[in-house]
Amino acid sequence: MSTKQPSLTYRDAGVDIAAADALVQQIARLAKSTHTPGVLPNRGEYAGLFEPNLAGLHRPTLAATCDGVGTKLLVARAMQHFEPLGQDLVAMNVNDLLPCGARPLFFLDYIACGSLQPDALQSLVRGMAQACKSARCALLGGETAEMPGVYAAQEFDVAGFAVGLVEGQALRTPAPVAAGDAVLALPASGVHSNGFSLARQALLQRGGYTYDSVLPALGNSLGMALLTPTPIYVAAVLQLLEILPVKAAAHVTGGGLLGRGKKMLPPGLRLVLQRNSYPVPPIFALIAEAGNVTDTQMGSTFNMGLGYLAVVAPQHAAAHAQALQDLGFLRVGHVHSGEPGIDFV
Amino acid sequence: MSTKQPSLTYRDAGVDIAAADALVQQIARLAKSTHTPGVLPNRGEYAGLFEPNLAGLHRPTLAATCDGVGTKLLVARAMQHFEPLGQDLVAMNVNDLLPCGARPLFFLDYIACGSLQPDALQSLVRGMAQACKSARCALLGGETAEMPGVYAAQEFDVAGFAVGLVEGQALRTPAPVAAGDAVLALPASGVHSNGFSLARQALLQRGGYTYDSVLPALGNSLGMALLTPTPIYVAAVLQLLEILPVKAAAHVTGGGLLGRGKKMLPPGLRLVLQRNSYPVPPIFALIAEAGNVTDTQMGSTFNMGLGYLAVVAPQHAAAHAQALQDLGFLRVGHVHSGEPGIDFV
Repeated sequence: MSTKQPSLTYRDAGVDIAAADALVQQIARLAKSTHTPGVLPNRGEYAGLFEPNLAGLHRPTLAATCDGVGTKLLVARAMQHFEPLGQDLVAMNVNDLLPCGARPLFFLDYIACGSLQPDALQSLVRGMAQACKSARCALLGGETAEMPGVYAAQEFDVAGFAVGLVEGQALRTPAPVAAGDAVLALPASGVHSNGFSLARQALLQRGGYTYDSVLPALGNSLGMALLTPTPIYVAAVLQLLEILPVKAAAHVTGGGLLGRGKKMLPPGLRLVLQRNSYPVPPIFALIAEAGNVTDTQMGSTFNMGLGYLAVVAPQHAAAHAQALQDLGFLRVGHVHSGEPGIDFV
Repeated sequence: MSTKQPSLTYRDAGVDIAAADALVQQIARLAKSTHTPGVLPNRGEYAGLFEPNLAGLHRPTLAATCDGVGTKLLVARAMQHFEPLGQDLVAMNVNDLLPCGARPLFFLDYIACGSLQPDALQSLVRGMAQACKSARCALLGGETAEMPGVYAAQEFDVAGFAVGLVEGQALRTPAPVAAGDAVLALPASGVHSNGFSLARQALLQRGGYTYDSVLPALGNSLGMALLTPTPIYVAAVLQLLEILPVKAAAHVTGGGLLGRGKKMLPPGLRLVLQRNSYPVPPIFALIAEAGNVTDTQMGSTFNMGLGYLAVVAPQHAAAHAQALQDLGFLRVGHVHSGEPGIDFV
């Protein structure tokens, strides 16, 4: 970190406008590659412009999410590997649009840094752009802020924001969850982007691992395993919604599988999940072992292998078994009467 | 590898879920006070839901912005005074919706901190909520992330996102700016939320002032003068758009009065601004003097007293002179032929 003499221009105050402009242009090229038909050309406007296709929508309703990547940032920084984090940022936001049935329209990002690290930020935005494409969501704009004094030279934070569109009526008419309903799930790729403070403390401080530790169970270094990006569940979930009615759904994020699973249920019902019906990424056993973390704490913090849950009528699940499998959905359990909670059998 | 130790919880890892939940509930109460008729009740959705009123709109188009408050954050932190900063965050975003004619619908915020400082964050969100109310913009949601290790205990950053709605046709049919057009402006309240790296370096390092320095020219301490929040220009600009056609407009932010002013103009035209037609907040002379900052650098960094510019036909300006004055618009100059740039006379 170099200390500069105080001086009279904005550049000498630690803000390099020219470098910022160059990076902004590179980001603009990546963003353009994500543009869907709704995006209007920007002619110097202060805002990104998007004309949604409202054809056939009764009472179109907007859905909006805002999220960051938490302390997964520290792993990416330690590994100097930022592209997967760009996918996480998009995934955390666009996947949150799905439980209410919204189709992503556009995404905006906020990147704040101590000083521009063009390679790191380009990798990050490349990851965002690829993720936006797979979500068919336009990267419509964003802010790249150089904030010396708030962030140290190599430091940065990122936040994202997504807007989706959903038919208004669809929000209000889900059939109630009932005992006997089937629980479908999309598998998680790993820790995703929640619980990293606990994961890091367990693995690094308690377990004595380093990010470079190569663990046979992971088939990779610990750092790379932790950086596995959150899947973009958009295509699978939107196709699911076209096939059959979904009664309740959860993007398994903060609060973990236990918290998010329970939240789908009305009083008097619980989930019964079959342990052997889905793969549990080995990183979770490693965290639990290294930190001596209880099952309850693990389940209240991490997705434990299930990234997205959907509750549907059993006859619908049966009738569309093949289509569901083709979309990547696993049938992982059912709804049972009882106190709200989850049984693992 | 690891010996059995007391089991690790998310709280031990530096994340206090209960405190976070309490703060989130307080924030939810403040947010609710901003809710406009479009906001749908949240029943545990992962996204904020908003049903826009599309009546009478031909090809409704969404406008979206993302912005933070830059290193003004450091002044607020030093002064431990966060409410005005909440207004800045909203203003930087909703005012950016106005040049394209969009009416703000909703706002979301991202707050990331090392550890929750409930009083500071409540003040911040109180400022946001008041600003949202004056913009008739719903505070629809947001993320409050506790990120130990990314931010030190007392540190935080904020980002905001706003979405607005504009009639599609309105975007495409402004009459071209022409020589003789009138330049209207809304006065700035101070530095607003751009150029703080330069302002701080000039005032604190070069000038030797502290935030507690009480300066007769400011009628206040330097810190409090710097924290004067950015005005919410929404009501004035939306009413202007109902009174007369606006040919070009600028929210004077990064790039300053010179950069943003020039950007409104087609080739072959420049602005002529009358220095004595608008008040210049005394903070600018103080910054220029303390840092020996050139006029060009000042004008390329700061708003220099003009927070929002609008170019209109001279006959419209004349016909509505009283209404414009009532809305707070000043007539500050005109458009002249010449190389793109600004003359001050």
